[in-house]
Amino acid sequence: MGASFPVPLTTRLTQRLQIAHPILLAPMGFAAGGRLAAAVTNAGALGIIGGGYGDAEWLDTQFREAGNAAVGCGFITWSMAQKPAVLDRALAHKPRAIMLSFGDPRPFASRIKEAGALLICQIQTRADAEIAIDAAADIIVAQGAEAGGHGEKRATLTLVPEVADMLAARAPETLLCAAGGIADGRGLAAALMLGADGVVVGTRLWASNEALIHDNLKQAALSASGDDTVRQTVTDIVRGFDWPERFNIRVMRNAYVDRWLGQEPQLRSVADIEKLRYVRASDEGDATTVAPIVGEGIGLIRSIEPAQAIIGRMVLQAEVALRRGARAVLIEED
Amino acid sequence: MGASFPVPLTTRLTQRLQIAHPILLAPMGFAAGGRLAAAVTNAGALGIIGGGYGDAEWLDTQFREAGNAAVGCGFITWSMAQKPAVLDRALAHKPRAIMLSFGDPRPFASRIKEAGALLICQIQTRADAEIAIDAAADIIVAQGAEAGGHGEKRATLTLVPEVADMLAARAPETLLCAAGGIADGRGLAAALMLGADGVVVGTRLWASNEALIHDNLKQAALSASGDDTVRQTVTDIVRGFDWPERFNIRVMRNAYVDRWLGQEPQLRSVADIEKLRYVRASDEGDATTVAPIVGEGIGLIRSIEPAQAIIGRMVLQAEVALRRGARAVLIEED
Repeated sequence: MGASFPVPLTTRLTQRLQIAHPILLAPMGFAAGGRLAAAVTNAGALGIIGGGYGDAEWLDTQFREAGNAAVGCGFITWSMAQKPAVLDRALAHKPRAIMLSFGDPRPFASRIKEAGALLICQIQTRADAEIAIDAAADIIVAQGAEAGGHGEKRATLTLVPEVADMLAARAPETLLCAAGGIADGRGLAAALMLGADGVVVGTRLWASNEALIHDNLKQAALSASGDDTVRQTVTDIVRGFDWPERFNIRVMRNAYVDRWLGQEPQLRSVADIEKLRYVRASDEGDATTVAPIVGEGIGLIRSIEPAQAIIGRMVLQAEVALRRGARAVLIEED
Repeated sequence: MGASFPVPLTTRLTQRLQIAHPILLAPMGFAAGGRLAAAVTNAGALGIIGGGYGDAEWLDTQFREAGNAAVGCGFITWSMAQKPAVLDRALAHKPRAIMLSFGDPRPFASRIKEAGALLICQIQTRADAEIAIDAAADIIVAQGAEAGGHGEKRATLTLVPEVADMLAARAPETLLCAAGGIADGRGLAAALMLGADGVVVGTRLWASNEALIHDNLKQAALSASGDDTVRQTVTDIVRGFDWPERFNIRVMRNAYVDRWLGQEPQLRSVADIEKLRYVRASDEGDATTVAPIVGEGIGLIRSIEPAQAIIGRMVLQAEVALRRGARAVLIEED
């Protein structure tokens, strides 16, 4: 599976999944289509299509785009639960894995496993991690608030080791991945130090050639610092997505977000017309209206590149960091 | 300086400061007194007294408590700026370093350096890092929102590498430390991967024998998850501290915080009487009223121990993680 590289980064994740690199593509709704997922798999990691709110036609198209590459598919659990047939539709494509985020995965766990797909559960709190263990997840993804898109409050840096300790005590065979803020090889190496077996990468692969995002938005995001991102709900209100209150969505601030931040009730009252405006701005790639859905890691990204180049450099940079770290320990023995 | 250990963790920070371990004590107001600072220094790291809001008598006492140990002193910059004589009072004790957080350090930089102390500037955003570079800080501390106590929004995991890139371009000799969420050796090792030269540790050393915190509060915090902490302002309102709006304070939730969260204007209107209630609760160690000021890392802490044991295990655990990381890279060469 996947291309082979001269010096792979070997973890339990790469061994269990038989992939070269301990990296999963975040199934970013609308952005992570079949072409990006296939590119990530072909680069030696695992691509996961962003099934998002569960548009069955779109999903079929994206699995076709992925061709022969072994890819997974992710869903927003609370949304998929409203039309669970879309899960069967995805399973019919024989995905490598199904990743469920933002909701209770237990009602869907056995169907996914019986279909031969890995069950990946993304969680944002310790309480959610307990539920993911109950669901017998093959992989738990601990997602911190620095992530782009939907998420919650905890930081990756503390959530990952806290969940690692839970798994060591209760489910030592369950794999753990870190998500949120991992945009280069330094973040990948850091995640391994925290006890993760691998990472989930969103923003860095959002800023790839293959992501289904208007080029204007990608370019607009390149100059941002992580300081320019914000967790908010404007972007959901204007798109008409009715998310549970505990979750919000990190985006890059722009004129539109700044206009409505703190004025959410007023935006709700004109959401019908604003939604049309937003759709038109999306088609036109108007980055002053449509907020790039990126995380704090955007401050580490300065170029749009093919996914393969991104994965390759991330792994190489992680190797450099890990070797330097070893030198910090071994310096007296050298 | 400091005790020597069989396998030190060598970084630019340990070399420049001539200390055994790349760890600084967070100058936690009221909690990090002279005894804790001295214990941290004597364990091979650098202790920093929490000068907080600048009580000169208290400071003199704490420097006396530190005895001959070389310790630093930290201040809340905006508060110290209102009574700058306290900086001279601290400098008279010949501190190893002065750490300034939460405000503009530039008016004080030259006095600190001329007195022979290292200037440490703690920042929470990229814009603050620019100011710290202008102040010619010897060490910049990039503090993420997972930290206990006062802070802002950015996560350690993304802020540290973003500032590392700034320093590489603009001030490569300036040292960088990570703060926020670093409560064990895994966090220390992760910080080194992110490009930090060392770490600042608060919560883990708050939960030490030497911290000036009522034992009831320490014990109450031991069972918490990081999920049980929250950034809020109740704790400042009730204590009568008038912080700039951009900062808030992470504490462990308790009955009192839950009572007033979202009711801050009402709390302000009865702050006089509530302050008295809070002071009494502090004296009594009533953890249902007085919120333990801890960060998300509390979910990784299960015991109160002497500072020396905490530092020793943190370094040992970091070494184990770093060696494991090196094996992940080198596995094919073994």
